[in-house]
Amino acid sequence: MATVLITSGPTREFLDPVRFLSNASSGRMGRALADAFCTAGHRVIVVSGPVAIEYPPQAEVISVVTTEEMLKACQSVFPECDGVIGAAAPCDFRPEQVASQKIVKSGAPLTIRLVETPDVLARLGMMKRHQWIVGFALETHNARQHALEKIQRKRCDLMIVNRPSAIGAEWSSVEILDSQGTCLAEWAGTKTDIAIRLRELIEQRFLKLSNTSGGG
Amino acid sequence: MATVLITSGPTREFLDPVRFLSNASSGRMGRALADAFCTAGHRVIVVSGPVAIEYPPQAEVISVVTTEEMLKACQSVFPECDGVIGAAAPCDFRPEQVASQKIVKSGAPLTIRLVETPDVLARLGMMKRHQWIVGFALETHNARQHALEKIQRKRCDLMIVNRPSAIGAEWSSVEILDSQGTCLAEWAGTKTDIAIRLRELIEQRFLKLSNTSGGG
Repeated sequence: MATVLITSGPTREFLDPVRFLSNASSGRMGRALADAFCTAGHRVIVVSGPVAIEYPPQAEVISVVTTEEMLKACQSVFPECDGVIGAAAPCDFRPEQVASQKIVKSGAPLTIRLVETPDVLARLGMMKRHQWIVGFALETHNARQHALEKIQRKRCDLMIVNRPSAIGAEWSSVEILDSQGTCLAEWAGTKTDIAIRLRELIEQRFLKLSNTSGGG
Repeated sequence: MATVLITSGPTREFLDPVRFLSNASSGRMGRALADAFCTAGHRVIVVSGPVAIEYPPQAEVISVVTTEEMLKACQSVFPECDGVIGAAAPCDFRPEQVASQKIVKSGAPLTIRLVETPDVLARLGMMKRHQWIVGFALETHNARQHALEKIQRKRCDLMIVNRPSAIGAEWSSVEILDSQGTCLAEWAGTKTDIAIRLRELIEQRFLKLSNTSGGG
């Protein structure tokens, strides 16, 4: 059995003590993956941003808020993992300055500079030794090209490409690309279905386990 | 019995199809208020931003995403209401431009201009005839002074002043100010306790009902 790190949910990047930049990631894909791997007897560590859902009780859950916190938590556990699935949607920009007090409205526009946050999966890619890395790419346009760039930058072994309509939804439609960008499969179904098929694919390709459950 | 409009939850203001500005409002205060007023037999209309909680089945719930949508929904029902409680935390800035495609990271900082969204409660204050208006003010500093400015701008009859620690929490500590900014009371307790005490206060001051339930 393997030890699998799953990142899940959104992160938040604060502008002041109240306002933040985020996205609508619900953590449902991460939960479905945690369920699929726990059910098959694997050890699961979930590093999750703020979500309203609950992860399976067998999973070890590390709760974080910002992308930097998600990175730190992942870096601390990655060496003991066999691989990582980056199902989180970390906020990839943060306000350059965080106001210590709530910004008071003045009637005038407010100009803010956003800087990029660290790329969690790419940073794990730089650390990887024996580990496999599975990424998710959410694209609104030029999906294949952007996904291929991400595969290379993050040193991914598999990339799951989906669309913004998947965010927060129960259902998703995805393409599975290998490390060369070749499309291995296209799956549509509930996140539970997709999680089970992805677990089977990971078991076959990286964990050398035979597929015993017959697909979703 | 009265018809009470309750705004609840956060709103979201999008930067592109994926990223948005928001806050951690959970809708719990709005739900506690909806419970308190429904239980007492009042008609309750909730205009709510995206939340993970559920409102009581007796409440009429109108779901919105942005502050502009929250304003429109409130304006359409306000004439038939006896009063409004602004328990929502509408996002009060929005990106001036919304990108139609997901913004691709370039490595360079991104400068965005934020403009103010309409002030939902102040706009209802401009429409008000017989209605009473109860606001919430979340302040990190100069709480009394900022609250008094809000009372005047929003034409509030009562203002509930709380702190960022109340966001998303079960428990809260509040000051109740009247339309002159005079502190009527200070309450601490669960949001359920505070909602019941606020309903009793509103019934006594605005609905001329005697207090029959004895306080929280």
